[in-house]
Amino acid sequence: MEQRVHNFSAGPAGLPLAALEEAQRDLLAYPGAGASIMEISHRSKTFEAVLQAAKSNIVQLLSVPSNYKVLFVQGGASMQFSQIAMNFLRGTDKSADYILTGAWGSKAIKEAKKEGAVRTVWSGKELGFNRVPAQSELDLDANAAYCHFTTNETIEGVQFQTEPNVGGVPLVCDMSSDFLSRPFDVSKYAFIYAGAQKNIGPAGVVAVIIRDDMLARVPEGLHSMLDYKLIAENDSLYNTPPCFAIYIVMLVTKWLINDIGGLAKIEAINRQKAALLYDAIDGSGGYYRGHAQKDCRSLMNVTWRLPSEELEAKFVKEAKAAGMDGLKGHRSVGGIRASIYNAMPVEGCKALADFMTEFKAKNG
Amino acid sequence: MEQRVHNFSAGPAGLPLAALEEAQRDLLAYPGAGASIMEISHRSKTFEAVLQAAKSNIVQLLSVPSNYKVLFVQGGASMQFSQIAMNFLRGTDKSADYILTGAWGSKAIKEAKKEGAVRTVWSGKELGFNRVPAQSELDLDANAAYCHFTTNETIEGVQFQTEPNVGGVPLVCDMSSDFLSRPFDVSKYAFIYAGAQKNIGPAGVVAVIIRDDMLARVPEGLHSMLDYKLIAENDSLYNTPPCFAIYIVMLVTKWLINDIGGLAKIEAINRQKAALLYDAIDGSGGYYRGHAQKDCRSLMNVTWRLPSEELEAKFVKEAKAAGMDGLKGHRSVGGIRASIYNAMPVEGCKALADFMTEFKAKNG
Repeated sequence: MEQRVHNFSAGPAGLPLAALEEAQRDLLAYPGAGASIMEISHRSKTFEAVLQAAKSNIVQLLSVPSNYKVLFVQGGASMQFSQIAMNFLRGTDKSADYILTGAWGSKAIKEAKKEGAVRTVWSGKELGFNRVPAQSELDLDANAAYCHFTTNETIEGVQFQTEPNVGGVPLVCDMSSDFLSRPFDVSKYAFIYAGAQKNIGPAGVVAVIIRDDMLARVPEGLHSMLDYKLIAENDSLYNTPPCFAIYIVMLVTKWLINDIGGLAKIEAINRQKAALLYDAIDGSGGYYRGHAQKDCRSLMNVTWRLPSEELEAKFVKEAKAAGMDGLKGHRSVGGIRASIYNAMPVEGCKALADFMTEFKAKNG
Repeated sequence: MEQRVHNFSAGPAGLPLAALEEAQRDLLAYPGAGASIMEISHRSKTFEAVLQAAKSNIVQLLSVPSNYKVLFVQGGASMQFSQIAMNFLRGTDKSADYILTGAWGSKAIKEAKKEGAVRTVWSGKELGFNRVPAQSELDLDANAAYCHFTTNETIEGVQFQTEPNVGGVPLVCDMSSDFLSRPFDVSKYAFIYAGAQKNIGPAGVVAVIIRDDMLARVPEGLHSMLDYKLIAENDSLYNTPPCFAIYIVMLVTKWLINDIGGLAKIEAINRQKAALLYDAIDGSGGYYRGHAQKDCRSLMNVTWRLPSEELEAKFVKEAKAAGMDGLKGHRSVGGIRASIYNAMPVEGCKALADFMTEFKAKNG
């Protein structure tokens, strides 16, 4: 087999080797099916068991309360930006609150405005999206249809350490880039969504956790594929779901449970990984400059600059030659971005931290 | 490896073994990437090459004229039922014509009605959807926003032998279940869509072929993920696409070009396969009764009844024991359905035809 690199891609991102190896082993014939998991009916008992296992793994990992449903939908988080507003803002006499901490939040607001009034209750834009707000900074509407935030902004590398307190307003969250990377209390949320391609699977499927009372808010007349109520009633099988992507989610969540030992364990590993890189930044005497404020630093996406763009280009090129790929920062922020989602092993971060030290010694 | 069965599943359906074997070989490390195709950025040169190859394979197979674009979208054909009406019916003062030949057409009409006026210009419902209309039976509106039809209805096993003539009205077609199973003249169509999971790949991606002038009809203010103009402008990369599903489409279309030799060749094979089963039906002296009228028989889904439901259940059970799976007909039609898409080898149809003869001899 060809050598695998240390993959710091922001997403689609690395997957656990154990999940990939099982998928590879069974790709031509899923056990008992006599065909690939891609080749069998989504209404077969075999696929039904895969779907239920993916759901129950998520329920187990997060202790999802019984008044929530786990759904799988398509179109990425971008489709959810629209669908949330169609289901929970359209036809109401309310506006929706959005906390804006980065590029993904901006996109969520842009789509929501097509359905109704949106209030941006805090924006980090003028700060260059380098932190999240303090609770006291939020200009919340106690009568909002919902309040939306983005736990982790992948481009800027800014992460909420805990969810904002929005009182009785339904809390809606884009958790695409840190879902299942740490434990959290589902009962504080009304609606959670996560594109799979960072921490839980390949691109092409989105996990949704929806509180039952939100289903009662869905207006009549929505298109079937955009109607959470219909999707929930059909247990994510209104039409053919992205079966293979759901299968990989099942394998990745199984790895989290069996190989890692749950979310407290993966959080400890993720903290260890992030500390290796942030320590390299903080110990560089200003050679590496982190983008995010220290108390808002992301455990998933570590972003920093070098003294010049030339050095940044050299860093990315030499890191790639040393077997570390995907480190170029997003063009809107520049610099370096190391995405270190669940599947990134500690050794990958050690290798990068060592490389950072060496690079500075040679080029500092 | 576990034994692979003859897979007559209606969809998700069998894939070419060559495509599955290549995907399996490269699942942990795509050549030159050092990571799985599931693990790399959708904006990387590696994935860009996969996307462009999938597109250009479709262009080559169908000789797609240069005034058309090939897109990949998510949500299955069911999302397209809605999206077509949002893009081409919403905000016009026109109605849309729909030719109704089966269960999928009914669903397309249901969603389109949420966006505007729909005229059902012919319905096969009272005939039990056992045929398609003659040209003379169509009550067409020369001023319609578009005219929609379904080339092949999978549940009933009814297929258009050639497209209807709708004059200057844009012809829109759900080709989910027979796309790339035979040559056709793209220039007769304004918009073609096909969920991948029958003939061209796994569930989770839809191929779209759109004529440039249709892009000019897209109204302002659509949600980004539902706006064909935005999707085309971004070459299907507005957000993260279903990369792995597109990769499999690339492998399957490569197989069609290199291993099969193009669409005229696959049509000849598909005709040979279907003839084996229809001959077994027609030669059974009425023991097997086909659902579709002979001149509308599908090359993709062969549907028939036995003298009793008990015998049908026995047929399905004994066929499965003999290594032929997925033969139970849809509950709305009953009986037997053998789905024999591109990836089904001739030997599979021979095995089933032989089984039909033996079953009748034992149970006739």
